[in-house]
Amino acid sequence: MKQVKPFLVAVALTVTASAFAQQAPKPEQVIKWRQSVYQVLGWNSNRIKANVDGQFNREEVVRAANSTAAIANSGLGALYLPGTEQGKGWHDTAAKPEIFKDGKKVGELAANFAREANELAKVAVNGDQAAVKAQFGKLGQTCKSCHDDYKVKD
Amino acid sequence: MKQVKPFLVAVALTVTASAFAQQAPKPEQVIKWRQSVYQVLGWNSNRIKANVDGQFNREEVVRAANSTAAIANSGLGALYLPGTEQGKGWHDTAAKPEIFKDGKKVGELAANFAREANELAKVAVNGDQAAVKAQFGKLGQTCKSCHDDYKVKD
Repeated sequence: MKQVKPFLVAVALTVTASAFAQQAPKPEQVIKWRQSVYQVLGWNSNRIKANVDGQFNREEVVRAANSTAAIANSGLGALYLPGTEQGKGWHDTAAKPEIFKDGKKVGELAANFAREANELAKVAVNGDQAAVKAQFGKLGQTCKSCHDDYKVKD
Repeated sequence: MKQVKPFLVAVALTVTASAFAQQAPKPEQVIKWRQSVYQVLGWNSNRIKANVDGQFNREEVVRAANSTAAIANSGLGALYLPGTEQGKGWHDTAAKPEIFKDGKKVGELAANFAREANELAKVAVNGDQAAVKAQFGKLGQTCKSCHDDYKVKD
């Protein structure tokens, strides 16, 4: 059994060590998945931003918000496995070493992110453009609060 | 207004030309997003496979299946914009030129993918391991049927 760090537990890690042992993804693959998750979140954000700042297409916003929420709830802590603190996926990891250590705080930030993403998915269904924009702003703050502390600056 | 190809319509493209004009993502960025989507789908598949072949953790399967379904429903056709037929995102695109041309057929394959992903998300909630495995197999067939025709072999 591999030991899991508190952060992994804190963000509701549901990957069992035995399950992962079967597939044994390499650290490089795990880092690629991790970097890809943030790209997909970035795509969704880009689409939502275009809609709240310009012509509002509710259907597109709902689709993008649902994708973001489902990803936020999908157990992202599993992508911060021990052994992936350093290394290259698509590029060198931008995760600071602290994200692997600050279990409690990172867990809180991850929960904030999921909460606001879930709320955006709800607001997107019925809210007007201004309400969606306001909730999108709250979601963005949760992204920023984590990036500020745990992402290497570009 | 940019012209949209039939495929983009067929897979329920909801991005308005005006919305995209605001952000004007570069082809390289769009291809990165596209490649990243399939990586996240690959991560989810990897997790589900580990669970249906080994120790079954329903919570993890539900999370991964929900993420896959939400992504499948998120309007992926928008990532096959004109101008992204060739080029490099994280790597050279593996999309064959035909995927930008075979609108009707590609739309059907995309709809099959979304349908089986939605079904997996349902089965994951209550189905036993064998039922989840069977539905995961059906989903995998929809991936393969598209890759066979429209993805450059590794």
